[in-house]
Amino acid sequence: MRILSGIQPSGDLHIGNYFGAIKQMIEAQNDNEMLIFIANYHAMTSNQKGEILEQNILKAAAAFLSLGIDPNKSIFWLQSDVKEVLELYWILSQFTPMGLLERAHSYKDKIAKGINASHGLFSYPVLMAADILLFDAQIIPVGKDQIQHIEIARDIALKINNEWGEIFTLPKAKIDDEISVIIGTDGSKMSKSYQNTIDIFGDEKVLKKQISSIITDSTDLKDPKDWRKCNVFNIAKLFLDKKGQEDLKIKYEQGGEGYGHFKMYLYDLILNYFKEARQRYHDFLSHPEEIKECLQIGAKKAKNIALQKMQRIYEKIGI
Amino acid sequence: MRILSGIQPSGDLHIGNYFGAIKQMIEAQNDNEMLIFIANYHAMTSNQKGEILEQNILKAAAAFLSLGIDPNKSIFWLQSDVKEVLELYWILSQFTPMGLLERAHSYKDKIAKGINASHGLFSYPVLMAADILLFDAQIIPVGKDQIQHIEIARDIALKINNEWGEIFTLPKAKIDDEISVIIGTDGSKMSKSYQNTIDIFGDEKVLKKQISSIITDSTDLKDPKDWRKCNVFNIAKLFLDKKGQEDLKIKYEQGGEGYGHFKMYLYDLILNYFKEARQRYHDFLSHPEEIKECLQIGAKKAKNIALQKMQRIYEKIGI
Repeated sequence: MRILSGIQPSGDLHIGNYFGAIKQMIEAQNDNEMLIFIANYHAMTSNQKGEILEQNILKAAAAFLSLGIDPNKSIFWLQSDVKEVLELYWILSQFTPMGLLERAHSYKDKIAKGINASHGLFSYPVLMAADILLFDAQIIPVGKDQIQHIEIARDIALKINNEWGEIFTLPKAKIDDEISVIIGTDGSKMSKSYQNTIDIFGDEKVLKKQISSIITDSTDLKDPKDWRKCNVFNIAKLFLDKKGQEDLKIKYEQGGEGYGHFKMYLYDLILNYFKEARQRYHDFLSHPEEIKECLQIGAKKAKNIALQKMQRIYEKIGI
Repeated sequence: MRILSGIQPSGDLHIGNYFGAIKQMIEAQNDNEMLIFIANYHAMTSNQKGEILEQNILKAAAAFLSLGIDPNKSIFWLQSDVKEVLELYWILSQFTPMGLLERAHSYKDKIAKGINASHGLFSYPVLMAADILLFDAQIIPVGKDQIQHIEIARDIALKINNEWGEIFTLPKAKIDDEISVIIGTDGSKMSKSYQNTIDIFGDEKVLKKQISSIITDSTDLKDPKDWRKCNVFNIAKLFLDKKGQEDLKIKYEQGGEGYGHFKMYLYDLILNYFKEARQRYHDFLSHPEEIKECLQIGAKKAKNIALQKMQRIYEKIGI
């Protein structure tokens, strides 16, 4: 299967991102053709500050490479290195009825939240369709809020296929459902907007602070504790195999250890789990030229696919 | 002055196009930096048929080259050969409030006429802004219906200059006013949509038919005629110097010649005026590789300017 994922370069990754999506991407590399790009054109719709965008791109690339995206197994590139996507975006725009975009919930929601109604934000789904259709992506793992965008891409592709013959592969959304609900420090879904995250690459002080802030009940140190209801346990289990989980359950049930102990245990668990990734991340960031080199490998491969597809489109549109 | 003109590759040119715009463009080549492009991305908003678009591009390029656009004096290129324009279009979109586009008369007029409301049509002014701003064009000769689009380009440029410093030149519209009102065969403004044109490159039979259809009054052959009110005279004078015009006036005033004579005279006048251009036009169309070569000269020069401008923009937007 050809699976496409776009990464928004917007700040620090947390363990919710990892267990909700990144881990699956890394595993999928072995049996699938993974296409992963850093969506810097998309990121411009919410941020137009160059220095911040540039820094966020490097951080996002370093993070994914450190966690296990392999630029030789997958195609991993920076969106703006394959500029054909904007040419396809313009061509798709001719086949995109305004009504299709006007009905997009995501745009309406953003406007309702007071975000400026720019043309970039409005036409975001057309660029997303171009991202998908340019590469004949079959599966697009998305959150529920993005399903409609995949439908828009399908609608546009169907319209053009009707006119030009079978030129585009119809993409399918793959919804990350239960697996993606990783709880945060307050017990609700881990999300940057709730400020309840535990970051993967934060320095040790920040990590300790985030873990300390996990909300627990007031059961006394010496008393048995219910691991089922405990946020610390529910986060810790992500890092544990069956045996490790059983051992931890016993510690909860026999009493004698407080939540402070369990938090310290979780802290060590996380640091240990991401030890190598954290080391690689910092190495990458102190050698940005290596990051760029990895992205160039991907850009070449992605460009190759894009140019072949565009060649067929040029014939149809008279370029 | 740096003057920018976009040419819609949409069918046959008529003498209204020539005397209303092309002649001025050719003359302006001597004292200005003329940038002239065939707007094939724009043309896609009204036509998505590849073969037709491709043919129209060749015909438009052949026509302009034949009439005197000099690829060594001017920069004359095909829009899609400088793909940076679409990258700038996307970047400008982030600074384009939806309200600015929603207020565009031209879009509303087209929708009112029953044209499909596509995203391409809607966002046309942003691409036009990119065309202009990418090349720091100072003067944009336009018809009255396009003034608002130049204002949109200025608005976007001002907004970005406020944010990023003086990066874009603010363009000015130059309105073709009286000089552009060339009358057609029925006495109203010559325009393809009125089907009252006299084509520059039509074959002789078509030309004869178009000239025969010029509406005249029923003054008898032997009687004096009023050249002031005569459509034949008003078209013929475009091709005549002072002396020629005076001679023709005398023929009208002394009577003895009918409108049929004057039409034959106009026919010879036009054929003679465009004799060399018509020859070159057919030569070009039977050697499309020569057309492409000319466009490539321009594309190189235009790309050069575009890349320099984009370099400055990349720094600002973090690419």
